Amino acid sequence: MKWTVYLSGEIHTDWRQRIIQGATEHGLDIEFTSAVTEHEASDAAGDVLGKDENAFWRDHKSSKVNSIRTKNLIQKCDIAIIRFGDKYKQWNAAFDAGCCAALGKPYITLHADDIIHPLKEVDAAAMAWAQTPEQVVELLKYTING
Amino acid sequence: MKWTVYLSGEIHTDWRQRIIQGATEHGLDIEFTSAVTEHEASDAAGDVLGKDENAFWRDHKSSKVNSIRTKNLIQKCDIAIIRFGDKYKQWNAAFDAGCCAALGKPYITLHADDIIHPLKEVDAAAMAWAQTPEQVVELLKYTING
Amino acid sequence: MKWTVYLSGEIHTDWRQRIIQGATEHGLDIEFTSAVTEHEASDAAGDVLGKDENAFWRDHKSSKVNSIRTKNLIQKCDIAIIRFGDKYKQWNAAFDAGCCAALGKPYITLHADDIIHPLKEVDAAAMAWAQTPEQVVELLKYTING
Amino acid sequence: MKWTVYLSGEIHTDWRQRIIQGATEHGLDIEFTSAVTEHEASDAAGDVLGKDENAFWRDHKSSKVNSIRTKNLIQKCDIAIIRFGDKYKQWNAAFDAGCCAALGKPYITLHADDIIHPLKEVDAAAMAWAQTPEQVVELLKYTING
Amino acid sequence: MKWTVYLSGEIHTDWRQRIIQGATEHGLDIEFTSAVTEHEASDAAGDVLGKDENAFWRDHKSSKVNSIRTKNLIQKCDIAIIRFGDKYKQWNAAFDAGCCAALGKPYITLHADDIIHPLKEVDAAAMAWAQTPEQVVELLKYTING
Amino acid sequence: MKWTVYLSGEIHTDWRQRIIQGATEHGLDIEFTSAVTEHEASDAAGDVLGKDENAFWRDHKSSKVNSIRTKNLIQKCDIAIIRFGDKYKQWNAAFDAGCCAALGKPYITLHADDIIHPLKEVDAAAMAWAQTPEQVVELLKYTING
Amino acid sequence: MKWTVYLSGEIHTDWRQRIIQGATEHGLDIEFTSAVTEHEASDAAGDVLGKDENAFWRDHKSSKVNSIRTKNLIQKCDIAIIRFGDKYKQWNAAFDAGCCAALGKPYITLHADDIIHPLKEVDAAAMAWAQTPEQVVELLKYTING
Amino acid sequence: MKWTVYLSGEIHTDWRQRIIQGATEHGLDIEFTSAVTEHEASDAAGDVLGKDENAFWRDHKSSKVNSIRTKNLIQKCDIAIIRFGDKYKQWNAAFDAGCCAALGKPYITLHADDIIHPLKEVDAAAMAWAQTPEQVVELLKYTING
Repeated sequence: MKWTVYLSGEIHTDWRQRIIQGATEHGLDIEFTSAVTEHEASDAAGDVLGKDENAFWRDHKSSKVNSIRTKNLIQKCDIAIIRFGDKYKQWNAAFDAGCCAALGKPYITLHADDIIHPLKEVDAAAMAWAQTPEQVVELLKYTING
Repeated sequence: MKWTVYLSGEIHTDWRQRIIQGATEHGLDIEFTSAVTEHEASDAAGDVLGKDENAFWRDHKSSKVNSIRTKNLIQKCDIAIIRFGDKYKQWNAAFDAGCCAALGKPYITLHADDIIHPLKEVDAAAMAWAQTPEQVVELLKYTING
Repeated sequence: MKWTVYLSGEIHTDWRQRIIQGATEHGLDIEFTSAVTEHEASDAAGDVLGKDENAFWRDHKSSKVNSIRTKNLIQKCDIAIIRFGDKYKQWNAAFDAGCCAALGKPYITLHADDIIHPLKEVDAAAMAWAQTPEQVVELLKYTING
Repeated sequence: MKWTVYLSGEIHTDWRQRIIQGATEHGLDIEFTSAVTEHEASDAAGDVLGKDENAFWRDHKSSKVNSIRTKNLIQKCDIAIIRFGDKYKQWNAAFDAGCCAALGKPYITLHADDIIHPLKEVDAAAMAWAQTPEQVVELLKYTING
Repeated sequence: MKWTVYLSGEIHTDWRQRIIQGATEHGLDIEFTSAVTEHEASDAAGDVLGKDENAFWRDHKSSKVNSIRTKNLIQKCDIAIIRFGDKYKQWNAAFDAGCCAALGKPYITLHADDIIHPLKEVDAAAMAWAQTPEQVVELLKYTING
Repeated sequence: MKWTVYLSGEIHTDWRQRIIQGATEHGLDIEFTSAVTEHEASDAAGDVLGKDENAFWRDHKSSKVNSIRTKNLIQKCDIAIIRFGDKYKQWNAAFDAGCCAALGKPYITLHADDIIHPLKEVDAAAMAWAQTPEQVVELLKYTING
Repeated sequence: MKWTVYLSGEIHTDWRQRIIQGATEHGLDIEFTSAVTEHEASDAAGDVLGKDENAFWRDHKSSKVNSIRTKNLIQKCDIAIIRFGDKYKQWNAAFDAGCCAALGKPYITLHADDIIHPLKEVDAAAMAWAQTPEQVVELLKYTING
Repeated sequence: MKWTVYLSGEIHTDWRQRIIQGATEHGLDIEFTSAVTEHEASDAAGDVLGKDENAFWRDHKSSKVNSIRTKNLIQKCDIAIIRFGDKYKQWNAAFDAGCCAALGKPYITLHADDIIHPLKEVDAAAMAWAQTPEQVVELLKYTING
């Protein structure tokens, strides 16, 4: 049985690579999916349709284009990993967590312990809170291989 | 036809009161609902079950107790207003927006224009972005009365 | 048992009034609902949030505001009446019919016989095709009173 | 991951071929699906069951036969492209868009800018509005490859 | 708490009246619903839209009109009673039972013991098989009052 | 794209074989599924668990065992063919049709024209009524190949 | 807003009465529901249909009759309280918890701390674990009144 | 067609092996799935995230980690086998049965006849009650091969 794991959130550190590499080393049969993680490409996703001067509409157009991908991938995943780093607002990660919760998709949060309190609602609906990508790999290995 | 409107997010300004008062002045038949908005009561929601020393578990227990209320109210609402202020992480508001999106509940975001960019995914799934509580009242009046 | 009937489509003739009046004369316990049917108010629904110069975005903003009302009312209706007149594109009426079909809401189409062919897919998913508002009233009376 | 894209609407220009060819040139792993697009075959879909003299019932029978195919394909697609040309009523395209909206399927509209206003409700529930098949190909490439 | 009970099937004996009367005598807070049970009215339900000469289409039109009522009432019921008599095919009763099963609506069958074998699939998905209306009343009383 | 077609109903004529053979001759990529169609095996499905003396419970036990198969196969099918012959009650076929209708599965009925009237509710929710297996093959060919 | 709370499980102590009384004292607007809690009546629920000699079928018949009530009440509740005492197997309480989990109904478990380990899966899907009826009342008061 | 069968419950006897071996001997195309059945590994599932001193939270953390696997596998199964042995509380098995019932997944219970009475609610929603793994194999063979 192949598993599909969606990796949501922060794009400035190598957490995705570390999880994917760890899973590969353990031979886990996982297809990892993700939003487009190149910041500039993501912000410009709608520009092919005509670039808006207005900042709100440019963002709006690009975000809706991005959602074609993310909505599909979240609906198809078996597990999501929701990552919060130490910078930026990362509301999109919390939004993805809310989608997963409402869809009944189990998710694991990945964040440092200094943001436990503001993430308490997101963590409360999670199946686990991990602090390192290596812990996530262990959880995936246990989930898939037992 | 009575409408139910869930008010999610920031608890440090009077936006809820202004929306409720505006709706009352226009005679709109709305039942407004909300999470428990008193910060300390909310943080202590699980303490009646035995207060944990561990910060994560205290938050966890309280958040799950709070979710009994919020999950029910979000599922019962016709419209949600998702408010982001200029302070704090407010990940719970983005989480509620994600729940609404996945459940097909129309929601309106309420925030200043300096956070358009980090909120672009949340706004992209919203039915409207308002900058003042008075605009929200106008939208509710239009939605209900035409 | 109260019934809720959503009236969708053409806004230039008095078909809504004739159905509502007919239902009233027969004492049917129906709550009729509808999109905002005043053309100019509907087009301007989003202007309270700042009127866009760009025609697409002005329409986009207003249509999303309108959908807060229509999405709720369609989801709450027991029966929809989908009306096509002899003018304009009326794609919104066909769109509403598609929503009803996917949601399993029974709907009745109301249109003249000269547009049978282009409406064949919309009619195929309908429970009935009526040519006059009076026929719709008869169907509602039969449905509710037997 | 294979993607399935449903192509709905106008059958008089080569927009389907241009999208399929563009996707092929980019090596996108897409299965394209569609209603039967040969007009006469589609109108005669039910004739094998006995051809009705009555125009309404002949259309009705054929449309229901066609819906066996289209209902399945829409429910199985990941993305739909909804195309409106400059002729005919094309209510079936708007109907398909309504189905997609209610089922939570992301769709992209494809139409010229002179019909923005009558399509505003259909566009409001879309994830993007494209004006050329080549733009659609770019959106599919971005969605699938990042 | 009010209960809604849908009475489906045979229309030639007084089983509906006996159940309704028994429930009334016990003071049960039940709203009973039903298809239109007058045979001729039901067969003619679509005639107001123009009576077809063709027997299939006349039946088709009337049955679809009838389904506006029955589909709504089945979806709104808490419990269905599915009655099979000793005459006629009564496929509509079995059809209603299938709908209830797929929708997760608990239903009780009501029939004599000489048709146990042909009804075995319908009974297997039922919550109870009763042989008299009085037994049904007892089950309703127990279900509602304890 | 592979299609799955569930064949429900009468087991005394060769209609299943004729449909399967016709589909094979046309090279249609269909997986046909069905309940266990050997009458005695089906009636005895539960006997391995201990054969009941009581006729009702023996039927009950076997029917529930059979439903493990049929429920799965109906939920997985893309199209169902519902066949009524000229003998027996065949309530299970009408029950399957009701399940399909409630699940939104398109189905085709297959029966002679002398039972149009008692089947009118089952036909009304069908996408087509065929009188011969060869017509069903034509509909499948059209649905799959266009 | 009225709340509905389903009380599931152990029937040998007065925990239901203590919760109902506590809620009444606090003036909470709650409709409490429950399976039939009189043991003998519950075991005999199906006897009106003819009492079976066979223990399995008597239990089977009565349990299915009971499920007409419990399935409806669980689907209609906003919150469930799942109570485990110190005696008996109480598999029905764990079964109800599983139903609630799958339906997305928030539930609170009520049990002593000596059965934490065997109840860990049931508790893991709960929103709270209480040890006394009074704690449950506090949670209900907080959930409803804030 | 491949079938997926989830094996839930008791971990102290060889019932899983006997079912799997029997299915293999009959050449059934089944993928068997299961929770992690090594007791100590299961209890320690969350320890990689930091082992809690508090017994409740250690169990809680591990159970939620385990549910990532079990929730996915139950949602993906076609059939579940729910096994109750003669020892321990086995509330997790009853909980899984409740999930299956609410999700509409057919399940077979496997237990001795001395626990018929306490399992009556769980058995009432099951499609069959078996007493030996060999009977389960027969039911699977019949379900898959006819």
